[in-house]
Amino acid sequence: MTRISFEAISETLQRVLCSVGFSNDRAELCARLFAESSRDGVYSHGLNRFPRFIETIKSGIVDANGEPQLVHSFGALERWDGMSGPGNLNAYASMTRAVSLAKIHGIGCIALRNTNHWMRGGTYGWQAADAGLIGICWTNTLPNLPPWGGTKPTIGNNPIVIAVPRDAGHLVLDMAMSQFSFGALETYRKRGEQLPVVGGFDRNGELTKDPGAIETSGRPLPIGYWKGSGLSLMLDALAALLSDGSATNQVPREVAKETRLSQVFIAFAASETDSEKTLNGILEFMKSASSEATVRYPGERTLETRKENLRDGIPVEPHVWDAILRL
Amino acid sequence: MTRISFEAISETLQRVLCSVGFSNDRAELCARLFAESSRDGVYSHGLNRFPRFIETIKSGIVDANGEPQLVHSFGALERWDGMSGPGNLNAYASMTRAVSLAKIHGIGCIALRNTNHWMRGGTYGWQAADAGLIGICWTNTLPNLPPWGGTKPTIGNNPIVIAVPRDAGHLVLDMAMSQFSFGALETYRKRGEQLPVVGGFDRNGELTKDPGAIETSGRPLPIGYWKGSGLSLMLDALAALLSDGSATNQVPREVAKETRLSQVFIAFAASETDSEKTLNGILEFMKSASSEATVRYPGERTLETRKENLRDGIPVEPHVWDAILRL
Repeated sequence: MTRISFEAISETLQRVLCSVGFSNDRAELCARLFAESSRDGVYSHGLNRFPRFIETIKSGIVDANGEPQLVHSFGALERWDGMSGPGNLNAYASMTRAVSLAKIHGIGCIALRNTNHWMRGGTYGWQAADAGLIGICWTNTLPNLPPWGGTKPTIGNNPIVIAVPRDAGHLVLDMAMSQFSFGALETYRKRGEQLPVVGGFDRNGELTKDPGAIETSGRPLPIGYWKGSGLSLMLDALAALLSDGSATNQVPREVAKETRLSQVFIAFAASETDSEKTLNGILEFMKSASSEATVRYPGERTLETRKENLRDGIPVEPHVWDAILRL
Repeated sequence: MTRISFEAISETLQRVLCSVGFSNDRAELCARLFAESSRDGVYSHGLNRFPRFIETIKSGIVDANGEPQLVHSFGALERWDGMSGPGNLNAYASMTRAVSLAKIHGIGCIALRNTNHWMRGGTYGWQAADAGLIGICWTNTLPNLPPWGGTKPTIGNNPIVIAVPRDAGHLVLDMAMSQFSFGALETYRKRGEQLPVVGGFDRNGELTKDPGAIETSGRPLPIGYWKGSGLSLMLDALAALLSDGSATNQVPREVAKETRLSQVFIAFAASETDSEKTLNGILEFMKSASSEATVRYPGERTLETRKENLRDGIPVEPHVWDAILRL
């Protein structure tokens, strides 16, 4: 593992993006969003994902110049078409617009259809919180998770993000509906480790902590079994209906061809008497659940990682960096 | 178990409510909401809960005549004070108002503070869907769930409800952040059954399916372990901040004294080209995950139970009915 500065990474990615047809401004923002994901420790959707992202540009799944277009305004709720543009730029534009609507109406909602993988979902939570607003967003995905009671993947892992601004560090939850992602299963398997809790079924239909057995069966678990299965379904239905876009069952079923996703972005601009005091009271009480420092709030580790990576450079796998330099 | 008609139950509850200070109109609605919960099979928050609800009126926790007051309008987002009124009437009024705002602005949000237990959360999801709108609502609760990494209950089980209207039967998800409620643990224990999946920790800190061991330890599991723990925290923070009301840590810690809750109600009024087709496509695909009829959508069982209970009468435990008749 080598460490490379945030600036060097951003500049390199920007150069590559310009070379595949991005305008300079859009390349700069897109590069920054990828670099920030790695900076915050979400390597899977930062640098490690970048070569695959470039592939989707080259294969035509993602249109480098596609920009969201307003389809219909309902007032505080707007429907946009992502025009097959880059998922992270579309999502960033959508949360920007939701924030603007919230500043006018108290709440703002963008339903976005025909977009692509947004990479790290937490990005748009941090974005809302950095603007001083509460943000919620979610996306549907290709079918990659069997629903409770079934064995075939007919629902998505549909990540949801919830963010609350706080001076001492935002609270940002970024979670998919599967207990472990396929990426996480692979990481555990390569390390030769068992999962900390059961993560899916093996081929005999038994719950297991063996990551390889779950990869083989293709049956990861939704969080909370029947509960996460139901929540995933509802998030997909809302995204498709509000955007008048595709539901998970209409998304191409190959990872490399995943496209036409539907997403929802909500921002809230209610001022509060003393939000810092309220939040600190919540966090202090939550952490009192243990006499040791074992209780963390969503986003807490992110700030520690960010600080370390900005100071020491962002850890990059040499083969990933080499691949990016060759793009 | 005896079966009593929906009408007889509604009339009886209405009479009791009038006797403890409800105006006739409010008694009628409050009685209907309780009766509908039992009608739909949610007995724990229907008739079985009614005697405890009357206790909270008599103890002064709930003000029979408390009605929500507008605190601040931000446009499509409004903040209301529940004035310690009955939780179900306050929640019903809030979703009614969210629906009205959504019809004007495309989306409407009510943040409600200083309210009481809303009984069956699904009620307000069915309400939004019956009005033809997508609805989301959630509530905080007293601290009743240890967060991931801790042993003491410092977060709430904070139920969330998501509802989507559909001609052939609404989709309504109504789920708490704990894998099993304390009521469910008690039911399994009394039947002498183990839980179908691990539901918490025993006193030695081991995950267990033994309901009694979890009741003893006071350590039920959040859905998805760390994920549901984080989601619960965020729902509490949003409810408290948006309503400028109490967070879970500020709610009295005895079940009989739980009050000053904060809740959020959101309705969406985006019209869709053909929502029935979209929803039926989603459901048909989801159910194809199994060759048997083992995959259900949220709310599916409710309609079956409702039909049966309206036809044959609502199952009521004789000792509960006797207690209600004596109120």
